[in-house]
Amino acid sequence: MIVQHFTYNDIQTFEQRYKAQFINSLSGFKSANLIGSHDVNANSNLGIFSSVVHIGSNPALVGFIMRPDNGERHTLNNIINTQQYTINQVSTEHYRMAHQCSARYASDESEFNHTGLTPQYVANINAPFVKESRLKYALTLQEILPISLNNTQLIIGEIIHVICQKHAIQPDGYIDIESLSTASLSGLDSYHTSNRISRLSYAKPNKALSALNVMGATVQQDEQITINDKLEAGDD
Amino acid sequence: MIVQHFTYNDIQTFEQRYKAQFINSLSGFKSANLIGSHDVNANSNLGIFSSVVHIGSNPALVGFIMRPDNGERHTLNNIINTQQYTINQVSTEHYRMAHQCSARYASDESEFNHTGLTPQYVANINAPFVKESRLKYALTLQEILPISLNNTQLIIGEIIHVICQKHAIQPDGYIDIESLSTASLSGLDSYHTSNRISRLSYAKPNKALSALNVMGATVQQDEQITINDKLEAGDD
Repeated sequence: MIVQHFTYNDIQTFEQRYKAQFINSLSGFKSANLIGSHDVNANSNLGIFSSVVHIGSNPALVGFIMRPDNGERHTLNNIINTQQYTINQVSTEHYRMAHQCSARYASDESEFNHTGLTPQYVANINAPFVKESRLKYALTLQEILPISLNNTQLIIGEIIHVICQKHAIQPDGYIDIESLSTASLSGLDSYHTSNRISRLSYAKPNKALSALNVMGATVQQDEQITINDKLEAGDD
Repeated sequence: MIVQHFTYNDIQTFEQRYKAQFINSLSGFKSANLIGSHDVNANSNLGIFSSVVHIGSNPALVGFIMRPDNGERHTLNNIINTQQYTINQVSTEHYRMAHQCSARYASDESEFNHTGLTPQYVANINAPFVKESRLKYALTLQEILPISLNNTQLIIGEIIHVICQKHAIQPDGYIDIESLSTASLSGLDSYHTSNRISRLSYAKPNKALSALNVMGATVQQDEQITINDKLEAGDD
């Protein structure tokens, strides 16, 4: 298996688009989410983001990275003006419509009209949800952290309303997003489905891990694979 | 299809562990990465993180969220002391060993010794890579942004050295991390493999998207699916 090393200087010589594809692949699989918002005239806006990240559960905080140069500044302006927005998981049935939301439409043009996605409204939430999304939530803006290194910003909101297909919610609170056909992203433009390998028990020193089923219950001992077995399996 | 709504008050009543599983499922699929570091005595440390996020390509910046309460403060102390660390993608062959790194080992105990993962060293990088990882990189600390909302921190580093299996690197710079068996995470403990649906062309207003193969080339027209077809397909 040929392994390639790239030094700092190698990376600096990459052509700009090549570098963008390469560096965007390094963080691993990314979430695919549509962020819905309204401007002051209630014009709806929808942007696709691959940088939504869990910040904490208590309080329930989710963040995303806002770039200075992408087509989604409408999203930030709307969030600042209305203090509310929605995050809608992208599923495999509508990943193309979601990707089309990255096109640079004018601020008075709604991505809903141009992509075929359907706005959905909930009382007291001043932002559109995506009807086609099977797991979505509304947030209130909590903080905007500027990242001076490259003029991006970390936008953090608190979750105030969650809409989810009931069958996916497991007894321990885990939501089986695979059963919702939630898509993942790699690089800038590659969309993927998923297959669960296993859930794993809470790790403790000097205690073997147990495989858990989707409901969070320990699976039969004879189906368990020890860490050492996995080491051999992975030893290629 | 039964859909469930959760209000802000509903979420506040969740039992703590239930809430952690539930809220951790909302951001979508997460990257699974091992962060390698050294303390001042060159004791190695390895922590698993699901919050690694792309910050920008030029300069090449990657961030991750450091919690105040997880077992990985060793990682932060090491990064502050040495200014360097590695990020190593977790693949399906060693996801169990990676998950075991979340156990709370003492600071003088190396997760490498306890999990069977193998440290790998590169000249001038003062942090261990994970030999078993097929795509990994070293970073120098650039900024630590405190998130006062929940006492977490966004740790941002610049990429200074990349090690990747050559076969995965495509002509346009995209790295086929699926061919590296890179795992994704959902919730707190569920590991997944992936299957590529398609890469998609750069989106422009009033222009139909084209499906791209893994190399970034447009696939045959008769294999193309229009956005409208996808709308019907997703209309369930």
